[in-house]
Amino acid sequence: GKAGGKITPRETDYPQWYQDVIREAELAEPAKVVKGCMVIKPHGYAIWEKLQRDLDGRFKATGHQNAYFPLLVPQSFITKEAEHVEGFSPELAVVTHAGGEKLEEPYIIRPTSETIIGYFFSRWIESYRDLPLLVNQWANVMRWEKRTRMFLRTTEFLWQEGHTAHSTHEEAQAEVMRMLDVYGDFAEQVMAMPVIRGIKTDSERFAGAVQTTCIEAMMQDGKALQAGTSHDLGQNFGKAFNVMFQTEAGGRDYVWQTSWGVSTRLVGGVIMTHADDSGLVLPPRVAPIHVVIVPIYKNDDERAQVLAAAESIRAQLADVDLAPPRSRHRDFVEVVIDDRDLRPGNKFYMWERKGVPVRVELGPKDLAKGQVCVKMRVDTAAGRGKEFIAQNEFVATIKERLDRFQDELLRIARERLQERSRTIDTWDEFLAAFAGEKSTFAWCHWDGTRETEAKIKEQTKVTIRCIPLPGHGPEPEAGRCVFSGNPSARRVLMAKAY
Amino acid sequence: GKAGGKITPRETDYPQWYQDVIREAELAEPAKVVKGCMVIKPHGYAIWEKLQRDLDGRFKATGHQNAYFPLLVPQSFITKEAEHVEGFSPELAVVTHAGGEKLEEPYIIRPTSETIIGYFFSRWIESYRDLPLLVNQWANVMRWEKRTRMFLRTTEFLWQEGHTAHSTHEEAQAEVMRMLDVYGDFAEQVMAMPVIRGIKTDSERFAGAVQTTCIEAMMQDGKALQAGTSHDLGQNFGKAFNVMFQTEAGGRDYVWQTSWGVSTRLVGGVIMTHADDSGLVLPPRVAPIHVVIVPIYKNDDERAQVLAAAESIRAQLADVDLAPPRSRHRDFVEVVIDDRDLRPGNKFYMWERKGVPVRVELGPKDLAKGQVCVKMRVDTAAGRGKEFIAQNEFVATIKERLDRFQDELLRIARERLQERSRTIDTWDEFLAAFAGEKSTFAWCHWDGTRETEAKIKEQTKVTIRCIPLPGHGPEPEAGRCVFSGNPSARRVLMAKAY
Ligand SMILES: [Zn+2]
Ligand SMILES: [Zn+2]
Repeated sequence: GKAGGKITPRETDYPQWYQDVIREAELAEPAKVVKGCMVIKPHGYAIWEKLQRDLDGRFKATGHQNAYFPLLVPQSFITKEAEHVEGFSPELAVVTHAGGEKLEEPYIIRPTSETIIGYFFSRWIESYRDLPLLVNQWANVMRWEKRTRMFLRTTEFLWQEGHTAHSTHEEAQAEVMRMLDVYGDFAEQVMAMPVIRGIKTDSERFAGAVQTTCIEAMMQDGKALQAGTSHDLGQNFGKAFNVMFQTEAGGRDYVWQTSWGVSTRLVGGVIMTHADDSGLVLPPRVAPIHVVIVPIYKNDDERAQVLAAAESIRAQLADVDLAPPRSRHRDFVEVVIDDRDLRPGNKFYMWERKGVPVRVELGPKDLAKGQVCVKMRVDTAAGRGKEFIAQNEFVATIKERLDRFQDELLRIARERLQERSRTIDTWDEFLAAFAGEKSTFAWCHWDGTRETEAKIKEQTKVTIRCIPLPGHGPEPEAGRCVFSGNPSARRVLMAKAY
Repeated sequence: GKAGGKITPRETDYPQWYQDVIREAELAEPAKVVKGCMVIKPHGYAIWEKLQRDLDGRFKATGHQNAYFPLLVPQSFITKEAEHVEGFSPELAVVTHAGGEKLEEPYIIRPTSETIIGYFFSRWIESYRDLPLLVNQWANVMRWEKRTRMFLRTTEFLWQEGHTAHSTHEEAQAEVMRMLDVYGDFAEQVMAMPVIRGIKTDSERFAGAVQTTCIEAMMQDGKALQAGTSHDLGQNFGKAFNVMFQTEAGGRDYVWQTSWGVSTRLVGGVIMTHADDSGLVLPPRVAPIHVVIVPIYKNDDERAQVLAAAESIRAQLADVDLAPPRSRHRDFVEVVIDDRDLRPGNKFYMWERKGVPVRVELGPKDLAKGQVCVKMRVDTAAGRGKEFIAQNEFVATIKERLDRFQDELLRIARERLQERSRTIDTWDEFLAAFAGEKSTFAWCHWDGTRETEAKIKEQTKVTIRCIPLPGHGPEPEAGRCVFSGNPSARRVLMAKAY
């Protein structure tokens, strides 16, 4: 499990490449002694913290408040909403003993918190004046999955779950779309990961929701990653937990609820959107370290001079705040000076694997010329190959350089999404596009039936990722289902998925 | 459980007062359906977020990195360290079933993570070059306690646990003291809660540690709150989990470990240090809301004018950042304008209960005079009664006002600690000081035996809170044990405790 091994090329074995990148960048490791769990190591957790911090600011800016509800849920709660129990029962972890005694009623470890939060909403909400109620929780949840993959699907994972209650369905629906847009903007602007926004089919809906919306991102192998979901729960949990309120008109009604979440799987999305055969690549807005300075020297004298210059550059960069002006956090440029007793080449190699956006080499010649040798993690319009830049200029333009690099990573990912998305109209073409492990984002006509959806999945492992929202896919147009040939009103997004 | 009830005076019933303050400030409520758990409501959670954010910055500034380890721990792990299993066994929650099947080996929900982290340290550490390893985890933990009290002792609670490994005992000991000092400074400078720093007796030591250091705060009723602990684990867990490393000299040795933690019980500490019979009192550095503006008007015209002026004041205050210059977060002055259709008196009452430091009344007369009417939550040198201040001046001096208020709350708490701490030399005096529910911070001679400690506890419920560190209590001086009359080398701190 230690770093220092090789990274399998993506072409050779994509799943192995993914594991290798995680190991070599020291992001996480499988826990092994705890089934399907992982340990999130410091570099991986620091990425999650950056994602959290930015998202949290967006939730607060849209009027939500954080709260914390119990980890354990009485087992009977999960049975109160019929579809919910059906969806989650096979995946539950159950606490049967505590404090040295067998419990009268077992508890489950929350797989999600609609039920326990529904219960508390019923205690807190009496009248339309208590609405809307807009809360979010940062928490760990547990779903006992059979097949796991680090970050993408683990039995325990970290996430946030927003839960809101409203007095009308319209208001709840607006909340669902508001948070989907928060996720979509975040994915694109912070993770540099373009997404398709859409609606899930009935069979892919969240267990207990009346509608599930989602953002779907294309990974480098053409598979889809469901990166976030925002659910319209209708009055399903309101009825299950008797969350009633007095309406403004004096009547009584059940509240309309929503829930929405993203998880540590986003870290997997960052990896599979940007990393390459040399290891991790991090967009600056999610990078825990922005710049690594590798000192070059032949003797102690040179070492002292070069390190002093490196410290001075670090000090200057450390004052640059990358965060937007009114944000509640500061994002100072993080610089590491790697003065370990190793050959520079080994250091380059290691920091490349960790995805640090900017590498600076600094030797006596550079000092003499007042310059630094800069190399970006990936060649783009934000910098190609080794650039020799005056120290002052490097410091003065670091923010611009990082912003440009961020934009370039998004541009590259957008181009990939566009180039690899296809319109497919025949079943032969479909089978060819999804042969073996292949995947793509296929825009296909679908006859709208569960049966067709199930058969496509059974025969090809391809699922309907979403029915696109206006502006996020082809416009509706009549056609024939790619599988059944029956009439279809619009194309939907089909792909294999993580 | 709804706010809007009365707050029992402290004199009448201190435990009831505590519950009333929590309910009326809407900080939390007992979960009831989940034994011994609570729901942390938005106002309570926002305080915890402020504590977290500041502490997290201090951990990072002292070289620690955050990581995340599994919630579940194989049951066999807990038995590997003899004292650890003895200490924690009675409090464990056990997962016996998952994914629809009975587990071969049950998992426990982490009561603390020394065991599981010890296991991973053994995989990560090979040589002295891997040391020190300095990690911290923000997490939920579970201890099945019989008697619970919101924030102070709940079966599930939120905390941070630092875990470090070192190549020498000296270095580990220095880490223990470094983190105790981080906690002590944080308690005093951020929570305005003075603490005594000391060492636990053997019987109060953490299960598995060779030494436990702690910070102890005096609550308003004279009882002690153990607010944070920092443990020297020696090589106990290193041996239990075979965490060996190659020393610089080429030998092999077990690592020396530390662990340290603070939890959501700190919120209880804030309450019982500062709140009064009118409700919560928040030091500005932990206050989610700093200023509430209550508009005063008699008609729609006045209302529009007053609200416009309030918005203008809010906008000006919102640019004031209370955070220290180089911190990674920003602490903009948070202002609420309470324009609800309620009588001003009701609003005053509500915000007072929520502990908001500054109240501003703003009416047509104030507008005409270009002034605001300011009232601080507690009368101190930072402001007494209603003050009429020019709007410009109020805005220009808000940071100073809040800083002074913070200092005043600390001064008041320090005076209370000093005034109520006593030197007690006779058993009669001791019994009188701790009669019934009474408590105080008693500096007493103790003969150093477990037997005496146990008898004192049995007869009076008083425990030895700590043996003070140099400068945090009376200097060592020979004397006679307050209970046994046997020789004693120094006084220790005795009190009833939460
Ligand atoms: Zn849109
Ligand atoms: Zn000290």
